[in-house]
Amino acid sequence: MIVAKFGGSSLANAANFNMVMNTIESDDRRKIIVVSAPGARFKGDTKVTDLLIKAAKAVPGSSEAKGFVDDICARLAEIAEGVGAGTQCVSGAEADLMGRLAMDASQKEMRLDAVKAFGEEWCARVMAAAFSARGRKARFIDPREAGMSVTTEYGNARQTNGCYKKLSKLASFDGITVVPGFYGGTSRGSIATFSRGGSDLSGSIIAAAVKAEAYENFSDVPGICAADPGIVDNPRLISELTFRELRELTYSGFSVFHDEAIRPLVEHAPDIPILVRHSDGRDTFTKIVNDRKQDDNCVVGIAADTNFVSFNVEKHLMNREIGYGRKLLHIIEKKGLSFEHTPSSIDSISVIIRLPKEYDPKTKSVNQEIVAANEATVAGLLEDIKSKLNPAPDIVKADTGLAMIAIVGEGMKESVGTAAKATAAFASASANIEMISQGASEISIVFGVMENRVGDAVRSLYKTFFA
Amino acid sequence: MIVAKFGGSSLANAANFNMVMNTIESDDRRKIIVVSAPGARFKGDTKVTDLLIKAAKAVPGSSEAKGFVDDICARLAEIAEGVGAGTQCVSGAEADLMGRLAMDASQKEMRLDAVKAFGEEWCARVMAAAFSARGRKARFIDPREAGMSVTTEYGNARQTNGCYKKLSKLASFDGITVVPGFYGGTSRGSIATFSRGGSDLSGSIIAAAVKAEAYENFSDVPGICAADPGIVDNPRLISELTFRELRELTYSGFSVFHDEAIRPLVEHAPDIPILVRHSDGRDTFTKIVNDRKQDDNCVVGIAADTNFVSFNVEKHLMNREIGYGRKLLHIIEKKGLSFEHTPSSIDSISVIIRLPKEYDPKTKSVNQEIVAANEATVAGLLEDIKSKLNPAPDIVKADTGLAMIAIVGEGMKESVGTAAKATAAFASASANIEMISQGASEISIVFGVMENRVGDAVRSLYKTFFA
Repeated sequence: MIVAKFGGSSLANAANFNMVMNTIESDDRRKIIVVSAPGARFKGDTKVTDLLIKAAKAVPGSSEAKGFVDDICARLAEIAEGVGAGTQCVSGAEADLMGRLAMDASQKEMRLDAVKAFGEEWCARVMAAAFSARGRKARFIDPREAGMSVTTEYGNARQTNGCYKKLSKLASFDGITVVPGFYGGTSRGSIATFSRGGSDLSGSIIAAAVKAEAYENFSDVPGICAADPGIVDNPRLISELTFRELRELTYSGFSVFHDEAIRPLVEHAPDIPILVRHSDGRDTFTKIVNDRKQDDNCVVGIAADTNFVSFNVEKHLMNREIGYGRKLLHIIEKKGLSFEHTPSSIDSISVIIRLPKEYDPKTKSVNQEIVAANEATVAGLLEDIKSKLNPAPDIVKADTGLAMIAIVGEGMKESVGTAAKATAAFASASANIEMISQGASEISIVFGVMENRVGDAVRSLYKTFFA
Repeated sequence: MIVAKFGGSSLANAANFNMVMNTIESDDRRKIIVVSAPGARFKGDTKVTDLLIKAAKAVPGSSEAKGFVDDICARLAEIAEGVGAGTQCVSGAEADLMGRLAMDASQKEMRLDAVKAFGEEWCARVMAAAFSARGRKARFIDPREAGMSVTTEYGNARQTNGCYKKLSKLASFDGITVVPGFYGGTSRGSIATFSRGGSDLSGSIIAAAVKAEAYENFSDVPGICAADPGIVDNPRLISELTFRELRELTYSGFSVFHDEAIRPLVEHAPDIPILVRHSDGRDTFTKIVNDRKQDDNCVVGIAADTNFVSFNVEKHLMNREIGYGRKLLHIIEKKGLSFEHTPSSIDSISVIIRLPKEYDPKTKSVNQEIVAANEATVAGLLEDIKSKLNPAPDIVKADTGLAMIAIVGEGMKESVGTAAKATAAFASASANIEMISQGASEISIVFGVMENRVGDAVRSLYKTFFA
């Protein structure tokens, strides 16, 4: 039995929906289907989940709210019609959504989650109806009913330990089961959603619970690339990578897969592979496994991300001050910030922190509010380090505009010369390396470069390891 | 005016003593001379300071103690005779030493420091007498009298802030002033010594106090080498390096200069250069300065040291646990240990700790007691990390037998490709890089390799950067 999860971009309209259903039917083992809410149909279109959030934020009962409700229900009806399920399968949708919107507004988070979950629920209902219309034995099942019990951290819920046993019963149905992703039920009977993209997590939990032979994660990409296609032209697809490698790649630039979604499999069913693949059913995919044979290329991928800042603290004889680094980290922690790396030498330590992204690739513009907030964060932390670190450091400064580039691969630990190849690639791209961190797991080396050097550096690394 | 400090190996016998005095007389600016106690005259000989420690540890009044006193006084007399000062200048030495040994044994540390300081004091007295015998205007002055006021941390004393003003008056004498290094006077009137090798510090404090034009540090080496001569054949002498570079090199392998000795100059008189040179007066030397022009070679030196251990902690989603690294460092700190580096990747962090040296180059043997103590330290810390780190890590292990190799140079920050050259050198030495830390000051990159790869790696690095 395979658990297959489909992302919203693959369920945006009836044509995609039909393609997805064909893909499901092409392999009899695909018995449990987890769906997101319909995504954007075209560039600039609004995802159903975003329409739902707008509806929730509009004044309850207002014509604005009603407008969103109408849009959402029209999209559902259009899909239902186009996939042969008929509009009667969504006849209850409008009343359901109006009911959710009419919930007690003082329970803001709970109400929002109930509204957001509507998209996944009705997408799943439509698909189950469509399979029935195709003459397949199929059922819709609500995650709450199926046993997806979650904590009451609305918008950021976590699965409970008890959910696996209950969900394991999903395996007993011999037709196709369609389950909405993204949410579960709390002990209070309310709906709570995982964080954004959480349908990946739903699929992973269910795959672990039913002990599936594989967890297929379908979307509009053919798998995971060895580098960001926005930087490298036609990067190769990674055929196989381990959970740990994926986590390291997710560090930056690899947002294709909600990384927390690995956890249920790592912890409960490490032998179940995840297949990241295209919903059109093509044969290529990236397989994520617990352990893999090493191939010749010890580096499987290159990830890069921007908006890092390095706080550099120098103090003569620092290494004689037991606890100095720990005190520095404590000051950062008190600001609610977590650090990414702390490279150090004898009298100095750098703390690398990730700031919120200033550039929004969607709007292709720099968000000035985030720029201002980041500047305030940096200035505030500089001030705190100067005033609170005891004994006082000799020099404290912040270098902003840093990017981190990680090269990742389990094979690196047995391979002499990987760092040499990588650093040579930086040099040939004339990218000065501002920091390096390698250690511990040794399945990645992280390099800091100035943001304007990222493109050249990543292309040079790609050429070195993959071309 | 130059403050010149001479190490014990240059004052071991009358011949060396005469050579040192010739060197002093060869430059009229050498007005203030700081001396250590006479060192070893030949391989296997015992330094006067070590004889003094043995005398202090022998039963007071015993014939064993008297034997050491006789040996020490005989060495002083032999030098005094050989340098033309005559034995009358040390006629009070025996009574002085017996008096120190007769001090209240319950004040163990205070008594030990008084005994240890005897060697420097009488070495200085002999030199002052010898200059007088040569017809030079010369004086002996005790550091306590000169104003070297120190804390009562016996064996590890620190200078007080007030000492500089008092010591500045040393400059007013127009002859040669000979001052014992290594100790000062406490507010209680007792003698307290700096940590071992502290005569370097005495010289540095005095140089800062009198605003000398240079602080010359003479010993039996011609300067500071770019790599350990025990590893690299005839390494080149470093002509100029900065205080910061020296500190980074002192990190490991560069024990020629007591590194804490830089501090008074860095803090009070950064424009005074330190000249590390041979006491035979030859022209070569290494100049340590506050700031220097960059030359072509961005790396000035390579340092290496052994007996490091890396504690590797893995925890899935570690980067979401704010404070995880800080908690780990706190556990280490509670064991009284300080960390050297903490390279990290997304789900793992390594903490590199320096353990006491297991191999004693003097006896050319492995000290089994230290081996056992180190094993206990590692096992205890592993246990603490496993039991106290919350949430519990997925994997904790310790890699022992690590060596750290640092390449150091202020020019590295402007130079693209230094890391590439260095890592290529490791690769060509078939030395797998276990960890890398570069950041912050960016005047060094530290690499971890297995101890058995150090020799090849350092030679390969030397070839890359200096050959």
